[in-house]
Amino acid sequence: MRLGVIGGGQLAQMLAQAAEPLGIEVCALVENSDCPAQYAATLIVGDQHDADDVQAFAEQIDVLSFEFENVNIDNLNTLSLPIYPPLPALSIGQDRALEKQQFVTQQIPTTTFLIANNAEQLAEAVAKIEIPCVVKTCRDGYDGKGQALIDGEFDAQQLWQQLGDKRLLIENCVAFDREVSIIAVRSRDGEIRCYPLTENRHRDGVLHLSIAPYVDQALQQKAELYIKGLLKALDYVGVMAIEFFQVGDELIANELAPRVHNSGHWTIEGAQTSQFENHVRAVCGLPLGSTQARGHSVMRNFIGELPALPELLAIDNNHVHVYHKQPRVGRKLAHMTVTNDTLSQTVITQLDEV
Amino acid sequence: MRLGVIGGGQLAQMLAQAAEPLGIEVCALVENSDCPAQYAATLIVGDQHDADDVQAFAEQIDVLSFEFENVNIDNLNTLSLPIYPPLPALSIGQDRALEKQQFVTQQIPTTTFLIANNAEQLAEAVAKIEIPCVVKTCRDGYDGKGQALIDGEFDAQQLWQQLGDKRLLIENCVAFDREVSIIAVRSRDGEIRCYPLTENRHRDGVLHLSIAPYVDQALQQKAELYIKGLLKALDYVGVMAIEFFQVGDELIANELAPRVHNSGHWTIEGAQTSQFENHVRAVCGLPLGSTQARGHSVMRNFIGELPALPELLAIDNNHVHVYHKQPRVGRKLAHMTVTNDTLSQTVITQLDEV
Repeated sequence: MRLGVIGGGQLAQMLAQAAEPLGIEVCALVENSDCPAQYAATLIVGDQHDADDVQAFAEQIDVLSFEFENVNIDNLNTLSLPIYPPLPALSIGQDRALEKQQFVTQQIPTTTFLIANNAEQLAEAVAKIEIPCVVKTCRDGYDGKGQALIDGEFDAQQLWQQLGDKRLLIENCVAFDREVSIIAVRSRDGEIRCYPLTENRHRDGVLHLSIAPYVDQALQQKAELYIKGLLKALDYVGVMAIEFFQVGDELIANELAPRVHNSGHWTIEGAQTSQFENHVRAVCGLPLGSTQARGHSVMRNFIGELPALPELLAIDNNHVHVYHKQPRVGRKLAHMTVTNDTLSQTVITQLDEV
Repeated sequence: MRLGVIGGGQLAQMLAQAAEPLGIEVCALVENSDCPAQYAATLIVGDQHDADDVQAFAEQIDVLSFEFENVNIDNLNTLSLPIYPPLPALSIGQDRALEKQQFVTQQIPTTTFLIANNAEQLAEAVAKIEIPCVVKTCRDGYDGKGQALIDGEFDAQQLWQQLGDKRLLIENCVAFDREVSIIAVRSRDGEIRCYPLTENRHRDGVLHLSIAPYVDQALQQKAELYIKGLLKALDYVGVMAIEFFQVGDELIANELAPRVHNSGHWTIEGAQTSQFENHVRAVCGLPLGSTQARGHSVMRNFIGELPALPELLAIDNNHVHVYHKQPRVGRKLAHMTVTNDTLSQTVITQLDEV
């Protein structure tokens, strides 16, 4: 079976790594063959915004999926092969306003938010939400990009231009206890399996550490209830992630990702079946694998720079994943996961500071 | 870094799968590009028995290793790049007579054996060893091929011809309690790490099930003593396996393999660092990873035929590895490993009968 993936970044790379032992070949549609997926996937060079390229790609594969949500849906609507996750779910994932509205529809608690279509509406929205608040472009933002924190005087016109003259989401700042995420997978025949909650720690707006499982039965049940409702409502197939702010015994949804997610990288070694393998299984119509954790995992991202490999491999029980990228400020270059039988603060501190 | 591997079978495939996340590209020298390593490694088509092909291959890689012991050593002796495991160790692994003599030199208990250079010597050796005994070609045998059991009348001339008119090893049959193996890895700077013992069950002379860890402190110490002595004596770098017959509290060495070994496939999911990753780390001069078991594993080989993927993936905590081979009698097509917190006879029975 040939699984097509739009994109050739590290998520495509890890999908291909998970598919290969199952005898499933991942074909990645990439603009540039010098990409993270280069050694793991079969690359097909083309532009996902070019309808002919996408058509030619589709003819070489059996099922189509994505490594990122910002795909050109217009070029996919006309294809006659199975596409998972379904395009309506992707379109929600592409737009923060639709995403927030979906949370509201599904009765999933989320931030207080307003939408601004121009600088005047931005000024009004900030006044209503009250500072401090966060402003995000509705589309194309990721890893803290396309965002601004407002915690004092600001110039609405200037900020509107700075964020690219684009529709904006304005939401309140949540004073959270911690950030957690849940990852779940739904099969073609509707089975859902949820991974345990993961605690996420960010640095400069980008995920820095994930610690899993985050064990809290009541919160786990709540998170599963929320994500299961969403998966069913969207007739979703594949892996989805929801990031939450935890405030006491409440979970407040921040964002969803209609794809495999950085906060689930620990599942490669830390769960019975990784999020990548389960996504492959789901979209290819295969039975899902166990989402149970195996001991405790701490995942560390490397952004912008990467220590030498011998230094990383000298860390006990460490599993290193390099993405074949040239170092650049703000770029995710690699991650690693340390697995242990018990949760160790020493390991968390060690990985935090590597 | 580019790691060259001679051979493109499933062992090369799994070496490449282990190397890729470390940012190490495996280049496999293969005669036919329709091979198990096809999606995991960069293939370089050539014949290892052709000196020019091997020279051209060597120019494209930084370090050279093997997936099987039957490499053409004459073509490698003249190369100027690092080669691991070292060629003298390979030459021992290529010849059962040298292998047995090495066990004797290292004071590792082994079977009673004699060597026959012709049919007359074969008849004499069988008379001395006494029946039942086992006759094996000294070179080129594997997975029960090139072997015969003698347990009654036999025609020495006929058997000599049947086994290919080749030098033979004749050894006594050991009434063993079980078969176990140990896998260990030695780094370039001499560090050695041993995996826990594995219990191996064969069917028709081929490995059928591996159950790991086989917990017996005294036997573990004995096996580690034996393999550590051998690794040091050979100034070995990389993964080595020794198969033993266990008789009470004694271990009697049957064979060694100067490479990653089928009885260590469970380490992919069942140990902190797989035998494949540790071989890559060792030969590339990187620090070794932990060889500690993670719970209990049962590995099942699929020989000649392979059930449908959905059937295999429906088994709890199962990890399937398909080798991209056309089914053929006696051919290893795939393996799978079920991992659990505890040792389960139910799982062993289930996998035995899949």
